[in-house]
Amino acid sequence: MRTLRTELCEILRIDHPIIQAPMAGATTVELVASVCEAGALGGFGHAYTEPDAMRKDASALRARSQRSFAVNLFAAPTPGEPPIHEQGEAIAAVRGDFEHLGLPVPERIPPPYAPDRAQQVEAVFDFRPGAVTVHLGDMTADTVSRLRGVGVRVGGSVTSVREARHLEALGVDFIVAQGTEAGGHRGTFLHVPEHVMTGTLALVRQVVRAVNVPVVAAGGIMDGAGVAAALALGAQAAQVGTAFLLCPESGVSEVHRKAIAGMDGDETAITRVFSGKPARGVRNLMIEKAAASGLPILPFPVQQKLMAPLRAASAREGSADYIAGWSGQAGSLARRLPARDLVRILVEEACETIERLRRSMSL
Amino acid sequence: MRTLRTELCEILRIDHPIIQAPMAGATTVELVASVCEAGALGGFGHAYTEPDAMRKDASALRARSQRSFAVNLFAAPTPGEPPIHEQGEAIAAVRGDFEHLGLPVPERIPPPYAPDRAQQVEAVFDFRPGAVTVHLGDMTADTVSRLRGVGVRVGGSVTSVREARHLEALGVDFIVAQGTEAGGHRGTFLHVPEHVMTGTLALVRQVVRAVNVPVVAAGGIMDGAGVAAALALGAQAAQVGTAFLLCPESGVSEVHRKAIAGMDGDETAITRVFSGKPARGVRNLMIEKAAASGLPILPFPVQQKLMAPLRAASAREGSADYIAGWSGQAGSLARRLPARDLVRILVEEACETIERLRRSMSL
Repeated sequence: MRTLRTELCEILRIDHPIIQAPMAGATTVELVASVCEAGALGGFGHAYTEPDAMRKDASALRARSQRSFAVNLFAAPTPGEPPIHEQGEAIAAVRGDFEHLGLPVPERIPPPYAPDRAQQVEAVFDFRPGAVTVHLGDMTADTVSRLRGVGVRVGGSVTSVREARHLEALGVDFIVAQGTEAGGHRGTFLHVPEHVMTGTLALVRQVVRAVNVPVVAAGGIMDGAGVAAALALGAQAAQVGTAFLLCPESGVSEVHRKAIAGMDGDETAITRVFSGKPARGVRNLMIEKAAASGLPILPFPVQQKLMAPLRAASAREGSADYIAGWSGQAGSLARRLPARDLVRILVEEACETIERLRRSMSL
Repeated sequence: MRTLRTELCEILRIDHPIIQAPMAGATTVELVASVCEAGALGGFGHAYTEPDAMRKDASALRARSQRSFAVNLFAAPTPGEPPIHEQGEAIAAVRGDFEHLGLPVPERIPPPYAPDRAQQVEAVFDFRPGAVTVHLGDMTADTVSRLRGVGVRVGGSVTSVREARHLEALGVDFIVAQGTEAGGHRGTFLHVPEHVMTGTLALVRQVVRAVNVPVVAAGGIMDGAGVAAALALGAQAAQVGTAFLLCPESGVSEVHRKAIAGMDGDETAITRVFSGKPARGVRNLMIEKAAASGLPILPFPVQQKLMAPLRAASAREGSADYIAGWSGQAGSLARRLPARDLVRILVEEACETIERLRRSMSL
């Protein structure tokens, strides 16, 4: 099989310069194993996963594949319980929606809101995946150094040149430059997220020029033409998220898949309503309501805990009205293919694209 | 000289698949002539240019180059004079800024606000450039057909798949897919502009897949790597704007050039404050003030006429505080090069990028 090789492929011990975005809620053992076996880097989105469940996923993965895999953690700090009156306002804003779906309306949203970050990192030390990536923040230079010391490659998401320089200074092995096209949570951690809404093409090129570590392009890459474009910009791999959501192995609901596949062009928006942090998903009733009313939203991830029952009930009912239908801006190009086939096709299309570019070149 | 060829090169009668974005205020005869002579498509941004001045520019250009050139027109409708109280509110919001620069504060902003669109089109029929492109709207199918009938190629900007299908149905020769990275005015005409903020990578790929006419990629393309990425996505040319602003031939002020060159990564924002329509420029005092206060803004292009003296005075004083420092999101990569050299370097870098991609491909 023809493929593409970059230095990062050696560093990550993968055959193809393609990384399956580690998307919380979507990354089943089946998906990650299929991607790894196909020669790309599969990864678990463990943002909300307890350490023991992380260990279990790692064991199950290793029973199915000896290949390198990745784990993604969120690094955003977890807040304490918000004042009761603030909780009351946020709950009141969605009371009608809870009632509409026949759900009990919570009186408050008590902790815990997220797994203990330090214990998640300790779990990573236990099972030592090929790579760990951080989203929504950073790790200490000491943690980065200790992980690298035991052979775990460390990467992190950035949405600006400044964030890229910050991670480079921490000693990471690679940087994921996340353009505004990307679905799910914006990884911004040094800025007001709305101030750094840089498109993938512009961001990747500037980050590649600004730092000396390998850069991975993320955001809007759905096919081999996109992979080739990412490499043209100087990225050493393409991180592909939304395209994997429609694989039969992914963990997302059928209503989520249909919302992505049903788009005509870009019908996504960025919203804080589902988690408290800005994230991109297919526009639906909940996103429109939040945008129109500017309803009160609790801090991340308290809002996530508030909205979880609403999202789940909506999906159960087969309605897209209240799901967090995370999708990148090119989700309309998603294909329903097994993950293994998708990896192969991405590589083939990228090679065909490069052949086409070469034919357009003349003396 | 090695170059790249696409079908659109034949259609537009150019040597290289590179279009200099026709940016109002920047496109001197010298700039357009240099670009055309270098084998790319130079073009005048005639959004605010009276028909007689358009004719003069065409004559002056033809005295310097026999090559094909383009003209860009804005197609947004011109409103009548806003109610006096609305004008008063918008004027009051910037009164302190006018006074700060020692400018007389206007009492009202009387018409005219823009050249007559029909007369601009008639001027195009008189001097028949190689191509005319429309921004912020469309033309009637009849006008498109008449222009094509006299040998003028017609293109138009889109920011969504729906807009692309709309222009294709009008019979245009090519479509410029303008991603959010692009500097200057968002070309949106069928949506609320803020609802279609799709990055170049995602937009171009989806438009290429949705229509059967050649697509030009615009937004964030500053070097040959960007040109190669655009072609990888299936675009048949790259439209490059901000990169040409730093050419000595461009018509923008030195303070505007310095604002672009001084960026570290993306320091731009989209604002309506300078014209009434959303446009991207380097963040400055005026943009921050408008964002913080949500000050009242008159319809396009009445707001443009209100703000023109403030912008000009700021540039004269060597201050970036009130200029409309249009720039794309990758402006930090701009180089101070003569236009002819810039075209040559874009082509060379694109070819080098394709050679690099080819070397990364193995069996």
